[in-house]
Amino acid sequence: MSSILKQRVRYTPYLKKLRTGDQCIDLFKNGQYLGWSGFTGVGAPKVIPQILVDHVEKNNLQGKLGFHLFVGASAGPEESKWAENNMILTRSPHQVGKPIAAAINDGRTQFFDKHLSMFPQDLTYGYYTRNKTDNPFLDYTIIEATAIKEDGSIVPGPAVGASPEMITYSNKIIIEVNTKTPSFEGIHDIDMPINPPFRKPYPHISTDFKIGQNSIPVDPEKVVAIVESTTGDKVPPNTPSDAQSKAIANHLIEFLEHEVKLGRLPENLHPLQSGIGNIANAVVEGLAGSKFKNLTVWTEVLQDSFLDFFESGSLDFATATSIRLTEDGFKKFYDNWDTYSKKLCLRSQVVSNSPEIIRRLGVIAMNTPVEVDIYGHANSTNVMGSRMLNGLGGSADFLRNAKLSIMHTPSARPSKIDPTGVSCIVPMAPHIDQTEHDLDIIVTDQGLADLRGLSPKERAQIIINKCSHPDYKDQLQDYFDRSIHYCTKKKTLHEPHILKDVFKMHLNFQENGTMKLDSWDQKF
Amino acid sequence: MSSILKQRVRYTPYLKKLRTGDQCIDLFKNGQYLGWSGFTGVGAPKVIPQILVDHVEKNNLQGKLGFHLFVGASAGPEESKWAENNMILTRSPHQVGKPIAAAINDGRTQFFDKHLSMFPQDLTYGYYTRNKTDNPFLDYTIIEATAIKEDGSIVPGPAVGASPEMITYSNKIIIEVNTKTPSFEGIHDIDMPINPPFRKPYPHISTDFKIGQNSIPVDPEKVVAIVESTTGDKVPPNTPSDAQSKAIANHLIEFLEHEVKLGRLPENLHPLQSGIGNIANAVVEGLAGSKFKNLTVWTEVLQDSFLDFFESGSLDFATATSIRLTEDGFKKFYDNWDTYSKKLCLRSQVVSNSPEIIRRLGVIAMNTPVEVDIYGHANSTNVMGSRMLNGLGGSADFLRNAKLSIMHTPSARPSKIDPTGVSCIVPMAPHIDQTEHDLDIIVTDQGLADLRGLSPKERAQIIINKCSHPDYKDQLQDYFDRSIHYCTKKKTLHEPHILKDVFKMHLNFQENGTMKLDSWDQKF
Repeated sequence: MSSILKQRVRYTPYLKKLRTGDQCIDLFKNGQYLGWSGFTGVGAPKVIPQILVDHVEKNNLQGKLGFHLFVGASAGPEESKWAENNMILTRSPHQVGKPIAAAINDGRTQFFDKHLSMFPQDLTYGYYTRNKTDNPFLDYTIIEATAIKEDGSIVPGPAVGASPEMITYSNKIIIEVNTKTPSFEGIHDIDMPINPPFRKPYPHISTDFKIGQNSIPVDPEKVVAIVESTTGDKVPPNTPSDAQSKAIANHLIEFLEHEVKLGRLPENLHPLQSGIGNIANAVVEGLAGSKFKNLTVWTEVLQDSFLDFFESGSLDFATATSIRLTEDGFKKFYDNWDTYSKKLCLRSQVVSNSPEIIRRLGVIAMNTPVEVDIYGHANSTNVMGSRMLNGLGGSADFLRNAKLSIMHTPSARPSKIDPTGVSCIVPMAPHIDQTEHDLDIIVTDQGLADLRGLSPKERAQIIINKCSHPDYKDQLQDYFDRSIHYCTKKKTLHEPHILKDVFKMHLNFQENGTMKLDSWDQKF
Repeated sequence: MSSILKQRVRYTPYLKKLRTGDQCIDLFKNGQYLGWSGFTGVGAPKVIPQILVDHVEKNNLQGKLGFHLFVGASAGPEESKWAENNMILTRSPHQVGKPIAAAINDGRTQFFDKHLSMFPQDLTYGYYTRNKTDNPFLDYTIIEATAIKEDGSIVPGPAVGASPEMITYSNKIIIEVNTKTPSFEGIHDIDMPINPPFRKPYPHISTDFKIGQNSIPVDPEKVVAIVESTTGDKVPPNTPSDAQSKAIANHLIEFLEHEVKLGRLPENLHPLQSGIGNIANAVVEGLAGSKFKNLTVWTEVLQDSFLDFFESGSLDFATATSIRLTEDGFKKFYDNWDTYSKKLCLRSQVVSNSPEIIRRLGVIAMNTPVEVDIYGHANSTNVMGSRMLNGLGGSADFLRNAKLSIMHTPSARPSKIDPTGVSCIVPMAPHIDQTEHDLDIIVTDQGLADLRGLSPKERAQIIINKCSHPDYKDQLQDYFDRSIHYCTKKKTLHEPHILKDVFKMHLNFQENGTMKLDSWDQKF
């Protein structure tokens, strides 16, 4: 037993339950329901998942040792190895990584994506274990801790995610104590689940509000093993901002300045939510370099760019359910722990993504879709309507409830044969995750469309004018004009569409590699 | 001045502002922004709207005197006359009546539908008046009162709706005091709008919780006219339940009993939300006749069937933003005022439809769509993707946030040429208001599909098996099988679709009057 482990585990009865990963293999049987800690690739268990991969590979158990696997969002790289070895029968609510997407899209893994605020509560309602025959609880939750307090409660690492609900709703618990990662004690604020009819209001009225409980309580009887983990989190490098994402960020910041000028936003804005990716990074960089001061962040995940945001002096406080940093980012974070730990709080995903709190605080939500249609519906998940990317995540938690719901996207993306082969503005999205009732602002590198208070036809014209790529503007205008003509005759002019033409851009992409049509009369 | 008016208006300075409707005509100019009280056809102003119709008709002002009109949901029959006379330039967020739908669908009225919980707050954010050049406020709000208290505050009638927000966000106010309708004093509980960053939690932790303010405060300086109204509310008779809607209700009640048995619902269930229409009536009748006791209701609108529900003894308390009764229903209600006023509370629509409270209470939400697709997306608003019916209403407020999100629909409806010409289960909904991430249960006269925790492919199979009409079962299965075959090759099996076929049932309906295809190879 390492001295650092002894130091981290302050509840001594647990030390009697110390096991190696190998000693845990026998606990796992085909078809079990498992919860893992982790969110956006950090804070997930590492030892047990890897040991089980090794076990399956060594004994050729592919297809014979599979699990129903639940993680708050995406787990670490071990999850990909599980997918490659057919160890994931069912998965929810979000995932990242080519092997797991491949398992979903070729039908080996049954996946369902769910609002990240809702997934943990639905788990505790018994909705996801209703076909389990023995009892309604998860068989095991494997949670990564960075410390154990004197009362046996768990101090998570860089992610809280769904761990409070999983621990509550699990028969047995395995704790991986990560001694490579520094202890995160003091940075969390933990709400434990309370279900109807006993729920009370969340009292949060500002981003820095804390309930005051900084670890996850657990019934020590449920803890069957403590395993030491010595592997740190590794996330891939962030996509840097580029000219296109900077153009998007500039449009957006200009718009926010305009809103402040007209009195619709206060000078320090409202709490910001920002997604993952290069546009999100460009927006955060743009805000850090803007004249806005005393900003706050209420979001789902913090990335490296937020460290620079703090350093700019413009950001007063940030809260999320996970802090997903690169190795360099984590180093900077640990080196300045005293500073960051005062300005930062990690909560459960039920709280970080809570519709109640998001609406109360008037959050400004910014997310990237796959595509947006001319009436303001967005596809966040399924390419061409069928191929799953990562899942819905918290996009709809934020966009439905924010005071300002913003989607930012390039106006076009390259296809294999055409540098602008994919238009991100389409007649109708072939999968809809965010409806026209949920979006206020669409912004691309071309410009910004303010949809608030507009009818569908008014929205379509402004989205085509302001947001579409020049290569597609005439084609989209042509679709819109033809649809108006068609629906004028039929007196169905609320949201004009020609159903037989509506996916022709997508069909042409599937058949010819570009969304550029010869004509709307083209047959498929 | 009638003695009853004097009795109702207890703030005497208002009596000096007494005007006839005719004396108000000059206040109204083309292009003004107006708010009306009212919700689901009750509690709307009657005198001024009718006087303005008369004025337009007498002076041939059609197209010359139009307004941007906002009502919490639908107003009374006067609204239809406004639509017929081209008096509605813009309308939001919900409407009922053929003339107003006609104006929207032939392009005379620009309509946008919005979540009913969100519409009033977005109004007070200035989102809907942002193109107004003089100032950002509504020009007039015309509100129906059933009494005025000593402090000048307004006691609404059978609807609260968006009145608190409209009054707050309006330059001037006209109060129609309805002396035909009895005073509703004591039945309301009013929350006035507070915007971020100053919002506090809603403290509601049970259906009968009250803030304690039973009238809408108003700045008397803003009140420019008091008008007596002597016309009562008239709503069309309710559609009675029939064999089909009773079959749906039976499946649903059996399911709720099953959930109680398995411990996923308490014996008195959670607060119920129910929509409008014959299925909703059948469900309420079914619950009233069931073994469930001590039930509560947290909903948007109460109908006649709820009076019987109270009489059955099974319903302890009900709250909504409007009580939409027939003349017989209102008579019964007034005759038993002392009983009902203790068991019933009317709130603003921001509160009745609050995501915060709906989620906290664990509401069981039940609504009827136009159609549902095999993967669990629903169309609530636009027939064939383009023709507006009534608007989104509060359906998504409830379905997104409920503990149990239920949509009930006939499996098929008649078309002009075929008694089952329209399948309510389709491959892909041509307009999506509720996504796959929001629905737990689909129930038709054929059966009930429990979608919780299922992947899209699993959902599709159970929806086809349990919910589709026998006339469409093979056709839908064929679509699903072909899509799986197609997407297996493309490795896009998460939510299998063939985009070129996906709307063929709708196209066949448009061309041939039925959704029954000769074959999926049929060309359009």
